[in-house]
Amino acid sequence: MLRRLYSTLPSNAKQAAAWKAIDHLLETKHAVVGIGSGSTVAYAIQRLAQQRPHVPMPIVFVPTSFQARLLLQQHRLPIAAIDEHAAIDVTVDGADEVDPALNCIKGGGGCLFQERLVAQASQRWIIIADDGKKSQALGSKYTRGIPVEVVPMALTNVKHRLEQLFPGKSIQLRWSQPSDKAGPVVTDNGNVLLDCHLGEIPPEHVPDVYTQIKSITGVLDVGLFFGMADRAYFGQDDGQVDTMDASPRA
Amino acid sequence: MLRRLYSTLPSNAKQAAAWKAIDHLLETKHAVVGIGSGSTVAYAIQRLAQQRPHVPMPIVFVPTSFQARLLLQQHRLPIAAIDEHAAIDVTVDGADEVDPALNCIKGGGGCLFQERLVAQASQRWIIIADDGKKSQALGSKYTRGIPVEVVPMALTNVKHRLEQLFPGKSIQLRWSQPSDKAGPVVTDNGNVLLDCHLGEIPPEHVPDVYTQIKSITGVLDVGLFFGMADRAYFGQDDGQVDTMDASPRA
Amino acid sequence: MLRRLYSTLPSNAKQAAAWKAIDHLLETKHAVVGIGSGSTVAYAIQRLAQQRPHVPMPIVFVPTSFQARLLLQQHRLPIAAIDEHAAIDVTVDGADEVDPALNCIKGGGGCLFQERLVAQASQRWIIIADDGKKSQALGSKYTRGIPVEVVPMALTNVKHRLEQLFPGKSIQLRWSQPSDKAGPVVTDNGNVLLDCHLGEIPPEHVPDVYTQIKSITGVLDVGLFFGMADRAYFGQDDGQVDTMDASPRA
Amino acid sequence: MLRRLYSTLPSNAKQAAAWKAIDHLLETKHAVVGIGSGSTVAYAIQRLAQQRPHVPMPIVFVPTSFQARLLLQQHRLPIAAIDEHAAIDVTVDGADEVDPALNCIKGGGGCLFQERLVAQASQRWIIIADDGKKSQALGSKYTRGIPVEVVPMALTNVKHRLEQLFPGKSIQLRWSQPSDKAGPVVTDNGNVLLDCHLGEIPPEHVPDVYTQIKSITGVLDVGLFFGMADRAYFGQDDGQVDTMDASPRA
Repeated sequence: MLRRLYSTLPSNAKQAAAWKAIDHLLETKHAVVGIGSGSTVAYAIQRLAQQRPHVPMPIVFVPTSFQARLLLQQHRLPIAAIDEHAAIDVTVDGADEVDPALNCIKGGGGCLFQERLVAQASQRWIIIADDGKKSQALGSKYTRGIPVEVVPMALTNVKHRLEQLFPGKSIQLRWSQPSDKAGPVVTDNGNVLLDCHLGEIPPEHVPDVYTQIKSITGVLDVGLFFGMADRAYFGQDDGQVDTMDASPRA
Repeated sequence: MLRRLYSTLPSNAKQAAAWKAIDHLLETKHAVVGIGSGSTVAYAIQRLAQQRPHVPMPIVFVPTSFQARLLLQQHRLPIAAIDEHAAIDVTVDGADEVDPALNCIKGGGGCLFQERLVAQASQRWIIIADDGKKSQALGSKYTRGIPVEVVPMALTNVKHRLEQLFPGKSIQLRWSQPSDKAGPVVTDNGNVLLDCHLGEIPPEHVPDVYTQIKSITGVLDVGLFFGMADRAYFGQDDGQVDTMDASPRA
Repeated sequence: MLRRLYSTLPSNAKQAAAWKAIDHLLETKHAVVGIGSGSTVAYAIQRLAQQRPHVPMPIVFVPTSFQARLLLQQHRLPIAAIDEHAAIDVTVDGADEVDPALNCIKGGGGCLFQERLVAQASQRWIIIADDGKKSQALGSKYTRGIPVEVVPMALTNVKHRLEQLFPGKSIQLRWSQPSDKAGPVVTDNGNVLLDCHLGEIPPEHVPDVYTQIKSITGVLDVGLFFGMADRAYFGQDDGQVDTMDASPRA
Repeated sequence: MLRRLYSTLPSNAKQAAAWKAIDHLLETKHAVVGIGSGSTVAYAIQRLAQQRPHVPMPIVFVPTSFQARLLLQQHRLPIAAIDEHAAIDVTVDGADEVDPALNCIKGGGGCLFQERLVAQASQRWIIIADDGKKSQALGSKYTRGIPVEVVPMALTNVKHRLEQLFPGKSIQLRWSQPSDKAGPVVTDNGNVLLDCHLGEIPPEHVPDVYTQIKSITGVLDVGLFFGMADRAYFGQDDGQVDTMDASPRA
């Protein structure tokens, strides 16, 4: 089970980014902290558990997925549901790719809806990632496509709309390994995923692409995050960590 | 049971609009026809069943709600699910209010998501209503608020966002009659409804209001329809029916 | 909104039962307390809020419905989700009818699944009700039928199975008020309800009826509770409260 | 995509069983035919498509999963939803293990709920499998555990109940490949799976084990099928097929 909760191989780069971000976060007193999903976040939760005897902890953690919730439970960290809090002080989350404006692709792990909901409710939103995730334009490094979460009954129609909206681009339903489950991957929210191979998206186009896709009836949400990140921590294999701050917003 | 399927009182105006629309529709041969929800649509289904012995029928009907599906089944009309058809020839649906640009408020009956999905997939989309639904600006006649369908875990946060987006406006969770069910009304898709009292919305603002609300993470869809209707049939109590056609689109 | 959260008319009998049960409960220290749904439970939550300044409170409350969760939030009582606790110390819940073995019909308010899940997880389970709910056999006083929660796609087949299992009995889909929502009532879990008019069920037959119905594929759960209650508090209009304890179990 | 729809390696044994079953089935005229899920069923659908020009086909096919529905669509076979038909003439489905009483383990592919619902609605139910699936007692050949479909909010409590019911047995949440999705496998119905390693179950105990597990609140269904199969076709690598008929039922 642990093999599946954590990434297959230990990663110095991910661990370095996660630990540094958590150590910074714990310097300030926070009541409600959001916890993202994925392999880098697993290191963040591990660090929280390590530091608990030494520093004051947030009162509750709000997980963004079944996976994050189970990791928090294993480390006996206190959990709250997102619907109990209209506002979250700060959230730490991973990303599949990050551009210079701190726009991200998220959803490789299929948790984009709850991750975006928690990000939307957060005063501050912090990215942790290995520095292989940095790029000049989204879609240049993470090439599995922009994940779009779709209500199952809308699949045929939404796929058709996306193909009209982005002519010539490949829109793929994400399938499960047959040994896990026959048919498509189903998200924690009971929906399916379309991975949209849209090519490289310049930073200034990200909001438009998001709005175009999100406006389609049948789309619950889109794995493009913009205007959300305040800071990113990028770890390297040698343990060094670079931070990148968002430009002040209008 | 029938009392609940149909409107409480028979309505000449609704019947007149529904029958005229169906009679026009049956003059052309259609393969796949979408069927909306609500009390006026019940008359449309009744008319289809009446005319079946006399005129060729569409091959299948795509219902937009549990209610529409059950009415079609009662009249033994053939049913197909929306996910079996990327395109629908024509759909007939009711509305809670219609402005001069044929924009509508829909969702008083809580079926807005499937209704919008079927409308989005339809080549032609036809409104049927009593003429009390006509207005100069949405929100002037239907005063129960714009219905917004929200994933339950996002309720607290989405309500908060809507209150920020529309300061001073009342955003109300729709509650069920306690004799039906304790707590809020739940939609056919397992979600809850926020009725947003936004005042009157001039026709030219409708698309913007839609996009602003639909872009919120946690919102599945919004009961505002624009750029969808090709024609509206408005019935009167004396049985007369006015039709109104959409201006040609760009 | 409050009108819909609470029962339409204040009830001395419900209040008396609820307050006495809560006062007893607070004499012992409990960490995790389950909170049922419905109008009588609203008085229990009110009493908890009143007593909070005076006596030590449980650490968290586990609600059994959207309604109970919202009431707890309004009174700022701390909430936990059922999936955070494998065991609950004690739960207080209402009932639609109670027989001499403390078997109950529950689900008039449509919350039977989560109520039964919380009851199943509880060390002690306490009923609060007005004494009009006491009867010699379930089905003699609450005549709206045994509520059965059914996955929507299984509705046709489950209804057919129930009609075969209980020949001549009326099995009714529960419809919503059209002003709330077109079509059937949908539960907090996204399912529909069949109200099964099975006549009077002698106490010793209750477990068998439960198992027969629960064994049907498509049935999520059944509004029959047995072997769960440890004690019932029945209030009267004059404020008197009778308690009834379960016989020791084998 | 096709790689994921079909089994990874072509199988003579599966194909032989599937083709023989379909050829028999098509000798009789059927209106409504249920179609199971999994790799053997893919051969059955292929055979239906091959035979369509030559023999009269059933009017509609009722799929038991998203996977089966997509395969039917690819081969342009007409589809109906399970809730449109109270009764199905005959269903063909695979199995993970089959005992001498034609009891089965099903749910390795996570589709057990819809498969069981369609089986329950079927006049005749036919198993197709390679002969490696035959055993003397369920659990001796398929060793990944009896799949149990659980509503997510009930996971902690149901796992606890199963551990009490089957002391010393391993009850495992099924995890997804992290490249597909972080966290657990989610079924087409939005639920999670507990694989229950109960050891070998003698044929005469299968109904009791089913009822014990299905009676737990939070369990939607169990991957044990009994009293359902009328016949099994077991294929061998050399293309030979054995049939096994159920004993007449009381």
